[in-house]
Amino acid sequence: MMRKRPLILLSNDDGFEAKGLISLIGILRSCGDLVVVAPDSGRSGMSCAITVASPLRLKLVKEEEGLKIYKSNGTPVDCVKLALNQIFIDEKPDLVISGINHGTNSSVAIHYSGTMGAVLEACMNGFPAIGFSLDDHSMEADFEPASQYIRKIAQNVIDRGLPSGCCLNVNIPVTKEIKGIRLCRQANGRWIEEFDKREHPKGGYYYWLTGNFHNDEPDGPDTDMFALKEGYISIVPSQIDMTSFQLLESMKSWDL
Amino acid sequence: MMRKRPLILLSNDDGFEAKGLISLIGILRSCGDLVVVAPDSGRSGMSCAITVASPLRLKLVKEEEGLKIYKSNGTPVDCVKLALNQIFIDEKPDLVISGINHGTNSSVAIHYSGTMGAVLEACMNGFPAIGFSLDDHSMEADFEPASQYIRKIAQNVIDRGLPSGCCLNVNIPVTKEIKGIRLCRQANGRWIEEFDKREHPKGGYYYWLTGNFHNDEPDGPDTDMFALKEGYISIVPSQIDMTSFQLLESMKSWDL
Repeated sequence: MMRKRPLILLSNDDGFEAKGLISLIGILRSCGDLVVVAPDSGRSGMSCAITVASPLRLKLVKEEEGLKIYKSNGTPVDCVKLALNQIFIDEKPDLVISGINHGTNSSVAIHYSGTMGAVLEACMNGFPAIGFSLDDHSMEADFEPASQYIRKIAQNVIDRGLPSGCCLNVNIPVTKEIKGIRLCRQANGRWIEEFDKREHPKGGYYYWLTGNFHNDEPDGPDTDMFALKEGYISIVPSQIDMTSFQLLESMKSWDL
Repeated sequence: MMRKRPLILLSNDDGFEAKGLISLIGILRSCGDLVVVAPDSGRSGMSCAITVASPLRLKLVKEEEGLKIYKSNGTPVDCVKLALNQIFIDEKPDLVISGINHGTNSSVAIHYSGTMGAVLEACMNGFPAIGFSLDDHSMEADFEPASQYIRKIAQNVIDRGLPSGCCLNVNIPVTKEIKGIRLCRQANGRWIEEFDKREHPKGGYYYWLTGNFHNDEPDGPDTDMFALKEGYISIVPSQIDMTSFQLLESMKSWDL
């Protein structure tokens, strides 16, 4: 019996027409049959948000040998839920990949990222899942230098699987000569907000969220941000369980 | 010199008029001066989502001795960002509390919850933060039985602080006779979706996200869901760092 081609679900948060997703499709077509379910437009910064107050739509926009593309008005997490429950009925995906995001999702960006929201959703449902992000927000970003690495990481996960409750957060530096891959931990950091406050023509103020990322440990050699700075692709193995067992232990002495 | 009263920032995801938040204000007024920055209406399921494509508004709706209430059109995370950057300029809060949510945020709900989004945001910015949620979705839910426990937990955190990168996810069972407090880990589980698929009057289909929670370890005695089932308040000490150090170690043998 012939081994069937892997079935891969793709999503993202930049929308079904984003260059990062189109590039990802091109990179992975040789690896398996692809089903894309992605937002109908940009949903950056949507984290694991779900749509509870309005109904979702789902539309097949392209179908050819080995590739189907659907768009939805939902969040990245909604897209994965719709895919797993309304499209993959009899046959389940062997792998779920989100990206390639236009912009890095290293350090604490995992918490805000719609790209990683889709990955966490797939992971919570028991599927091996990977998020890929390129450290370049431009819509014309060049995803080509990373293509061989993306195939290699995807193939490793197809062959080996991932432990239950774990997924991969992969970030790619902007360089034509990527030095290789590093396994990393999530760097400690935070966004220093700089709201752009403006007077409203009808009175009062309104605020645009801007801000700069501050890396609390710029010299941490085992962090994802350090790897990116050095020209390496960072992989942070990430987990659904957010329990701090260390604090749990120390709180046993509290008066509760 | 007199010790100043603690300054406490409150937020939630059910909106500034929700009973859970009004109850929380009543419970905490004796503990410190309160500043509330909350969404102008319900933002359930918003996770750590941020608003990047439209401007934010912020409006003071109530001011009296020891209490200020602001509403915003943003997500819970936006509310915390606005509070920390536009309201708390000279003086920073001693504690950030989100809730009391109408509905539990135990197990993996921490990833979808707007209530916990606000908590994680405060935590990432270095503030001690707690999320409180009651296992009752009703808008008329009774928050009174938990009041003494909420004050006790808040006072402990004011006195002792929390380690950097850690916060508390507190869930409260629905019972008039709460048995006490348990320190727990996050239960493994997931939502089994049951989309309600309907025909659209203009053709095609639309989908309402429904679903039931499946607890993968109903007999796990140290989990938050087990504590709630037994009538105890669960505290899951939670952390920002999602790195799986176990998988990181085992991936060192991969061919990357």
